[in-house]
Amino acid sequence: MTTTHGTTPAADGFRMPAEFERHRGTWMVWPERPDNWRLGAKPAQEAFVAVATAIAESEPVTMAVSARQYENCRSLLPDAVRVVEMSNDDSWMRDIGPTFVVDGTGRLRGVDWIFNAWGGLVDGLYFPWALDDAVARKVCEIEGADRYRAPIVLEGGSIHTDGEGTLFATEECLLSAGRNPELSKEEIEAELRAYTGVTKVVWLGRGVYLDETNGHVDNLINVARPGLVLLTWTEDPDDPQAEISLDARRRLESATDAAGRSLEVVTLPSPGPILITEEESGGVDVVKGTLPRRPGDRLAGSYANAYVCNGRVVVPRLDPRFDDEALEIYAKAFPDRSVVGVPAREVLLGGGNIHCITQQVPDPDLA
Amino acid sequence: MTTTHGTTPAADGFRMPAEFERHRGTWMVWPERPDNWRLGAKPAQEAFVAVATAIAESEPVTMAVSARQYENCRSLLPDAVRVVEMSNDDSWMRDIGPTFVVDGTGRLRGVDWIFNAWGGLVDGLYFPWALDDAVARKVCEIEGADRYRAPIVLEGGSIHTDGEGTLFATEECLLSAGRNPELSKEEIEAELRAYTGVTKVVWLGRGVYLDETNGHVDNLINVARPGLVLLTWTEDPDDPQAEISLDARRRLESATDAAGRSLEVVTLPSPGPILITEEESGGVDVVKGTLPRRPGDRLAGSYANAYVCNGRVVVPRLDPRFDDEALEIYAKAFPDRSVVGVPAREVLLGGGNIHCITQQVPDPDLA
Repeated sequence: MTTTHGTTPAADGFRMPAEFERHRGTWMVWPERPDNWRLGAKPAQEAFVAVATAIAESEPVTMAVSARQYENCRSLLPDAVRVVEMSNDDSWMRDIGPTFVVDGTGRLRGVDWIFNAWGGLVDGLYFPWALDDAVARKVCEIEGADRYRAPIVLEGGSIHTDGEGTLFATEECLLSAGRNPELSKEEIEAELRAYTGVTKVVWLGRGVYLDETNGHVDNLINVARPGLVLLTWTEDPDDPQAEISLDARRRLESATDAAGRSLEVVTLPSPGPILITEEESGGVDVVKGTLPRRPGDRLAGSYANAYVCNGRVVVPRLDPRFDDEALEIYAKAFPDRSVVGVPAREVLLGGGNIHCITQQVPDPDLA
Repeated sequence: MTTTHGTTPAADGFRMPAEFERHRGTWMVWPERPDNWRLGAKPAQEAFVAVATAIAESEPVTMAVSARQYENCRSLLPDAVRVVEMSNDDSWMRDIGPTFVVDGTGRLRGVDWIFNAWGGLVDGLYFPWALDDAVARKVCEIEGADRYRAPIVLEGGSIHTDGEGTLFATEECLLSAGRNPELSKEEIEAELRAYTGVTKVVWLGRGVYLDETNGHVDNLINVARPGLVLLTWTEDPDDPQAEISLDARRRLESATDAAGRSLEVVTLPSPGPILITEEESGGVDVVKGTLPRRPGDRLAGSYANAYVCNGRVVVPRLDPRFDDEALEIYAKAFPDRSVVGVPAREVLLGGGNIHCITQQVPDPDLA
């Protein structure tokens, strides 16, 4: 049974583990909406199958899927991936799934943040989003995990942690007008501490250029271990991304983490810029109220948007000119894991990448 | 992950435990179809909540529910009951869920029988039934149980076992024209042995008078322990049920079980006869192809249709003239359990009772 607690994880002695700590498994959601995924989501489904399969080689994967798509999804995925019905508005489990926390005594709980499609009626990406907002609770029930319903709007992709008390976030996202405009930065930070158990928030400025999530931190950086951050970078001074990455680097290098460490920053190349083609745009249904996918629009492609699971790192392949370099950087940053590249342009076309479509369930027995 | 095995439970050393052996939990499905459940299924939902709550006091209960009804279902059930989305055609988990088997080494697997709505296009009760037929696999995936896809049409309510090698079934049901007409009685018996691990089938004749399932055995008898069977009975010699029960009694008393025991038969009173009222009939949507619920139609009410879970027995209350007597018989037959009566006329109006709407998951650690 799943009890909803009125207290907070911090008050109850729980903490959010880092993604690189041991997992019990991974959750994803099957893509289907034809106003976001081209050609009835068939190319995206192929990409999601590749991602799920790559992760399932190292840990159990559960794919949530609407009743409409169940048979198709079950038939396209290998037996190794568990498929469960779960209605949804789109397929971004990082953002709609629970943020799991552990207490060092074998207990696992889920934080169920309020979800409003990345900005609600201010600048959200679709309406309605009620099914997405209900996903975290449903995942908790299947995992047998108790739940906290956090009182703020937040997506899992807008926070990263080192598991040792430090949380990374961007001001662009967490202070956006469409999320918690009634709260000050200090009040938001207090909620982050209360619901993730961290003691230090490292604030970055803006996220990746044109990121439609108001600059999720998980598209800008990846945390390889306490003290080591991978940062999206560009060598082109005329690219608007250059100033964003430079500012992030300065903030990271001048910060200390919860343990008092300085942070080492390793840069990742930027793919592209990657633009939506005429053909790709033409495959997306036009629906009023959903973010359009216009030809020539620049996508917020980033190698930071990778997923760290047991024994491996699953990295998006986005641009043959830079893919191998990015994979090598991951291999160095994660010396004990195998690094697997998965073609992910079709995921990017939907507005995110491999980190955005995954959510880890930590091992409840973590310290 | 859930692997589907091409072998059989008997060949792999698995057996179907008796219902009275220890459970890990219980599955149910939420009622909603307005062409079977009156008044948009609201009275039935209230009855299902009472049944789930009564069981959840002794073991974990999971309620499967369509996406349409999720919010309503979650709001009506206590936190103690887990709710998971699962599309379905109706709410008879006994008949559409897996028959679980164990192997004495901690392994649990599910037998996924072919389901055709109690007779398919011959005399089935609705069409389509594809969502129901997919339920057993989905339950197995959430339970983390491997699966067998049995090659015959069968519902869980058409078999009872004593857990020690004996299976009870009716000829009316298992030999019906709408299920496996191409198989002989001997061939069907061979499949029962292969997929439940029993060594002896005790064949009864007909099920309860006017039972729309072609006489499911679980509405006629209940198995209290090896060697002890509760049988629906009537003292009215003019009631068509009298001859059916007498024949069943003679067959039971002349049979021996797999262990060579004679069977003790204890009779249960029959409620009613219970007829559908004008008001009840008027609350059901008329839909072509679904069994109608006409005023004055006699319902196949039976106290045998009870559910045995950890530490308790949940018995339908169907008729104040006989309820207490039936509960007392259960109390004597199950001296180590508490017996709980739950008002169940609204379940009966849909065509079954408490046993029909439940399916146990045995403790995988059973011997």
